[in-house]
Amino acid sequence: MPSTEFSLETGRRRGLVDLTDRCARFVAEVAAGRDGLLNVWLPHATAGLVVVELGAGSEEDVMVALDRLLPRDDRWRHRHGSPGHGADHVLPLLAPPSLSIPIVGGRLALGTWQSICLLDPNPDNPTRRVRLTFVAG
Amino acid sequence: MPSTEFSLETGRRRGLVDLTDRCARFVAEVAAGRDGLLNVWLPHATAGLVVVELGAGSEEDVMVALDRLLPRDDRWRHRHGSPGHGADHVLPLLAPPSLSIPIVGGRLALGTWQSICLLDPNPDNPTRRVRLTFVAG
Amino acid sequence: MPSTEFSLETGRRRGLVDLTDRCARFVAEVAAGRDGLLNVWLPHATAGLVVVELGAGSEEDVMVALDRLLPRDDRWRHRHGSPGHGADHVLPLLAPPSLSIPIVGGRLALGTWQSICLLDPNPDNPTRRVRLTFVAG
Repeated sequence: MPSTEFSLETGRRRGLVDLTDRCARFVAEVAAGRDGLLNVWLPHATAGLVVVELGAGSEEDVMVALDRLLPRDDRWRHRHGSPGHGADHVLPLLAPPSLSIPIVGGRLALGTWQSICLLDPNPDNPTRRVRLTFVAG
Repeated sequence: MPSTEFSLETGRRRGLVDLTDRCARFVAEVAAGRDGLLNVWLPHATAGLVVVELGAGSEEDVMVALDRLLPRDDRWRHRHGSPGHGADHVLPLLAPPSLSIPIVGGRLALGTWQSICLLDPNPDNPTRRVRLTFVAG
Repeated sequence: MPSTEFSLETGRRRGLVDLTDRCARFVAEVAAGRDGLLNVWLPHATAGLVVVELGAGSEEDVMVALDRLLPRDDRWRHRHGSPGHGADHVLPLLAPPSLSIPIVGGRLALGTWQSICLLDPNPDNPTRRVRLTFVAG
């Protein structure tokens, strides 16, 4: 089965959640040593995917930059949810819900400093779903 | 035939055009119940793809955010076309012309609130082309 | 072999590097007239991919816009490298390291004005690696 979906508890915290290990385990199971692509997909309108270095401050930098680019104030027409939630619905303009990563010899071809992260700016949605799909090269 | 291209009349209006139904019909025809990926591609340098919730104000919010992030004034070196058109040529920095969506059991694996949209900020280009490509999982 | 990786000397210059010819040559070799997708991937945390028109000023416009959206000052927590380098680590929020382009009849389905570019804002990293992967449709 080349496609699977799972749930993550992201809680009320706004920020990045590392998906790299989960992606690596899926690829180890389904790729069976082959080349191809892993597609990561979020079936959500208020979350995105980013590939960043973790552990040196960039996870906080991403959130500060996001809140400056899309301020969480009352400017938005979309007014459901918490104050500023309209900004979350514009996130896909910057960070899409789709990411495709090459698989080489059955492994993710990530660089040394790359981690695959779910960016969840939305404190109203404590559970997120993630879909992983493998296509052979 | 796993790849097709079609034209859309976007007119002189700046904004989002919903491609979801067109994508769903293509997938229903070519996926034949299989898993895989649908790639949506715009062969244009001044349009992008975004996945957003429609009908609650976010389509206007996306355009207002875009015009704040990339103002349509005389700052741009690219000076062909209407005033501010240089901004349209920087749009791909934010919204790429490519999007891959998982197909599960022959259907788009979209979340409840997700619509696949062409973002056309360019009033000079009333016709756009869209390419859909299916790859099996 | 549907996946390959190569090095590019980007030097100390900040800006765009055109990858289109290199991508076209790879596709001509591996696609053998078929439809499918080319995935371009950067195994780097401080570089991104953009599809823009070259030669009319937009390459400079992209860099000016980027430096306005993510200023190279001392606001960033990530403090390794040159001053302002923390901004480079937030680039993937805007320009991801992954891009998938449709292949039709063994050729890239690019529009007339589209070039596939590596965006390298980082003067500290003079060599970059690029991975190309083909998946058949």
